[in-house]
Amino acid sequence: MSSASENELDCLGWAARDASGVLSPYKFSRRAVGRDDVSIKITHCGVCYADLVWTRNKTGDSKYPLVPGHEIVGIVKEVGSDVHRFKAGDHVGVGTFINSCRECEYCNDEIEVHCEKGVVSTFNGIDVDGTITKGGYSNYIVVHERYCFTIPDSYPLASAAPLLCAGITVYAPMMSHKMNQPGKSLGVIGLGGLGHMAVKFGKALGLKVTVFSTSVSKREVALSVLGADRFVVSSNLEQMAALAKSLDFIIDTASGDHPFDPYMSLLKVAGTLVLVGLPSEVKFSPLSLLRGRITVSGSATGGTKETQEMLNFCAAHKIYPETEVIPIQYVNEALERLIKRNVKYRFVIDVENSLE
Amino acid sequence: MSSASENELDCLGWAARDASGVLSPYKFSRRAVGRDDVSIKITHCGVCYADLVWTRNKTGDSKYPLVPGHEIVGIVKEVGSDVHRFKAGDHVGVGTFINSCRECEYCNDEIEVHCEKGVVSTFNGIDVDGTITKGGYSNYIVVHERYCFTIPDSYPLASAAPLLCAGITVYAPMMSHKMNQPGKSLGVIGLGGLGHMAVKFGKALGLKVTVFSTSVSKREVALSVLGADRFVVSSNLEQMAALAKSLDFIIDTASGDHPFDPYMSLLKVAGTLVLVGLPSEVKFSPLSLLRGRITVSGSATGGTKETQEMLNFCAAHKIYPETEVIPIQYVNEALERLIKRNVKYRFVIDVENSLE
Repeated sequence: MSSASENELDCLGWAARDASGVLSPYKFSRRAVGRDDVSIKITHCGVCYADLVWTRNKTGDSKYPLVPGHEIVGIVKEVGSDVHRFKAGDHVGVGTFINSCRECEYCNDEIEVHCEKGVVSTFNGIDVDGTITKGGYSNYIVVHERYCFTIPDSYPLASAAPLLCAGITVYAPMMSHKMNQPGKSLGVIGLGGLGHMAVKFGKALGLKVTVFSTSVSKREVALSVLGADRFVVSSNLEQMAALAKSLDFIIDTASGDHPFDPYMSLLKVAGTLVLVGLPSEVKFSPLSLLRGRITVSGSATGGTKETQEMLNFCAAHKIYPETEVIPIQYVNEALERLIKRNVKYRFVIDVENSLE
Repeated sequence: MSSASENELDCLGWAARDASGVLSPYKFSRRAVGRDDVSIKITHCGVCYADLVWTRNKTGDSKYPLVPGHEIVGIVKEVGSDVHRFKAGDHVGVGTFINSCRECEYCNDEIEVHCEKGVVSTFNGIDVDGTITKGGYSNYIVVHERYCFTIPDSYPLASAAPLLCAGITVYAPMMSHKMNQPGKSLGVIGLGGLGHMAVKFGKALGLKVTVFSTSVSKREVALSVLGADRFVVSSNLEQMAALAKSLDFIIDTASGDHPFDPYMSLLKVAGTLVLVGLPSEVKFSPLSLLRGRITVSGSATGGTKETQEMLNFCAAHKIYPETEVIPIQYVNEALERLIKRNVKYRFVIDVENSLE
């Protein structure tokens, strides 16, 4: 094996070097563009909580140097000889995974995220060639075309970034649980990166949306900016009681520990609560399920087919995430602010204009 | 108000007098047959765990003397002037509720069990006239025709009794979660009154059925008598691991506390676990939901429409609960054996031949 010579290290990124999670500039190489590959000049990358989890080795499996980022958008530079879906100049996105077995039941159903052999994550994953994958905090990436998405021309690239993880994580279960029924009612717990997208999707689908938050400070933005129909401070027992058995659906985006029974009591008979946040445990009384044929389900990101559908849906309905665009030099501070939930509502790194 | 005179106390039952739960003969009156009522000579009544819960005041709301029993079958004696669905001599059943508002959304959908004003339970309930309802451990009952079911002529009355609670409790969620897909796989946790019915329904629906039990002693009956395809002792980690991601559905009938994560890991992507037992709590890791878009749902008994469908389904497919028919004089001992789970698989009281 030959080590990469200096001039092959043509990809510039920001990497964490250890569990401190502090990111700094880092040069590395990407593979040559294969027949099925798309090489993408990255313009923007969203900042997801996952970036924090793995740069700081919270799950114990971080492989340093670690280049995070799995909400990637950019412009096609070059495509392999067998690529027909994309051409140079196209606007494209890459989400949370960049490979899968492509032959199991779930890959065949285009929900590759559930691949029987496991997907290869966009960063900190081990690709089929044994290399450790490196994410979107970098100036370009090479990805098999199957895992690239078309960003509709009219759609701003910076706004598209958060759709690739936050957006699809919310959209996929909304579709699979048939929330596309105008007039039905949706509760959204938590108003962060995921929650604010749930509100926007809910309104676009014609749902009556109620936001539940622990903080009254979010009332104004929930109602005026995001267009929710109702805002409830979840500690207000009177307001909660008034909504008993009134909701068809709830999307629970809260990652802090919280009780489930009070929210389940707000669902109509046969209502569904979908968890997309990650509390330390889920605990409730069996009566909360049995009394009203209640369903509790969960979901994480989505497959390629539903991701492309979601991007098209956002373009068609002019749904744009609320973003705070930052230079990459600000990313360490941004990650600190993420811990404090001090972001409205998704950081997006302006890779194109700040990474050099 | 006049007190009932001696000769009006023409209904003979067995009642618990206090929280000891000991049952003994008790005479009381039933209302006169109203225009919409059916008067039923009770031939059999199943013994449900609920009978134990309320005769012993486990929920603190028992009203004594308490005549339990909500798996009632019998023969029509008399009908009111407006009753057209039934006539004297018909075989009929009555389940867990005998009244509801009949005008809410859920009553209109014939899932009266979820009536907005609450159903009136078959025993220990407060009927619209203020009387305390008395159940099927008695020689006759008067019920509004809406809450009576036709027992198909060919179907043995003793076998029909357990269908009215145990049967519908399992059947309703199997239908609403679309388990009627031949070739799919079903896991059944626990092999009591509910579990053994889940196996029988599963086989009739063309499912591949795996029984999970804490006791190896149930292997033979699960495979040979009930016709399950596979039997797993749930403490056998090797057998459990071999079934990872292999099941489409699980029906969890276990009422003792038990972990959920190990069973959820056996479900395929988008698989569903339906809880029909009543453990003290439901607790699992959110990853058990998120990893595979898993659904956890619950259900308790069912509405009038699905109950009649279930009875017809059992007759058409010759599905008969496994019963131990007992005289009413044995009922106190039977309830003790129920606590010890020493019943194969449902006690049915031969009311007609033993209550006098």
